Amino acid sequence: MQTPLIDDLISALKVLPGVGAKSAQRMAYHLLERDRKGALRLAETLNEAMEKVGHCRQCRTFSENEICPICASAKRVQDEICVVESPADIAVIEQSGIFRGTYFVLMGRLSPIDGIGPEDIGLPILELRLQQGGCSELIIATNPSVEGEATAHYLQQIAKNYDVKVSRLAQGIPLGGELEYLDSGTLTQAFLSRREV
Amino acid sequence: MQTPLIDDLISALKVLPGVGAKSAQRMAYHLLERDRKGALRLAETLNEAMEKVGHCRQCRTFSENEICPICASAKRVQDEICVVESPADIAVIEQSGIFRGTYFVLMGRLSPIDGIGPEDIGLPILELRLQQGGCSELIIATNPSVEGEATAHYLQQIAKNYDVKVSRLAQGIPLGGELEYLDSGTLTQAFLSRREV
Ligand SMILES: [Zn+2]
Ligand SMILES: [Zn+2]
Repeated sequence: MQTPLIDDLISALKVLPGVGAKSAQRMAYHLLERDRKGALRLAETLNEAMEKVGHCRQCRTFSENEICPICASAKRVQDEICVVESPADIAVIEQSGIFRGTYFVLMGRLSPIDGIGPEDIGLPILELRLQQGGCSELIIATNPSVEGEATAHYLQQIAKNYDVKVSRLAQGIPLGGELEYLDSGTLTQAFLSRREV
Repeated sequence: MQTPLIDDLISALKVLPGVGAKSAQRMAYHLLERDRKGALRLAETLNEAMEKVGHCRQCRTFSENEICPICASAKRVQDEICVVESPADIAVIEQSGIFRGTYFVLMGRLSPIDGIGPEDIGLPILELRLQQGGCSELIIATNPSVEGEATAHYLQQIAKNYDVKVSRLAQGIPLGGELEYLDSGTLTQAFLSRREV
């Protein structure tokens, strides 16, 4: 027996991933009670972002500019391209600081069952880049899921047609990971990819 | 190295309780990628709710009308008043369906340390209702915290001046609770409130 407007607010908050009825209610009350200003700023930013943020023409990540800051940066090695499934993957790689090249974001992965083919994940755009010779190394960083693996395989096939080095991120035991708690798939990979020391 | 607008969106989402940098980013990407319509509706509802939702004049809960639906309902026992700390408490009591009276929402609890006195939690409004004889039973349902208890005690003192029955929610072992895992405070209450059978 909420008022209709509070019901609306609670149900609107449920568009957020991981937010169910209970936390939506908590959020609504919190904003009404303690942070109306923050709520108005959120509304404004949502409007502006949904209107203006599109995709970088070169790497397909989210960007309000035609070319994103990474693709536009002179400090990045433009011909090393790391292929990831989503913009969130870029964020985590950037945090590590290990990579100074650029990205290509699939915004998904191949999934014939869901009708997601090569065009849907932007592969013609990537292939054009390979054709134009703008890539010396293609680093495939799709997720180690069935679909991520299939996508990686497909990318390798494409890259074969061009003079480009192809690599994939190593799979194995994560830093600080304990063997006891590893899934057998990871353990298998760790064995298969073992290195002589 | 996000674009400024996406950074803004992520930081704006952090006004939501329980949402840190990581989940704010996940939310921003999710909305941009999969639900721009939902994001726009959220923005619209936030604006409307922050502008229009105030407090019920009678019970102080959130409401866009002067009098909230419960206070306005002929189906509710108007002179049974359950005093709660927050609108969220109303929601959980309504879900149980056990109570058919009305509420009074403190929107907080007494806390001298934080400078929160009787006026801040609306007690003059509640006392006016008692004076006007609009209350036969006052059910105190503040939380069993130190401040909630102090608030309950204060409410009992006020009610003494009027011809009104005062009660408090029973404390004890929760349904399905196992003794082994109960805190000693709850167990003590359960002993003290034990009933002859
Ligand atoms: Zn880009
Ligand atoms: Zn009311």
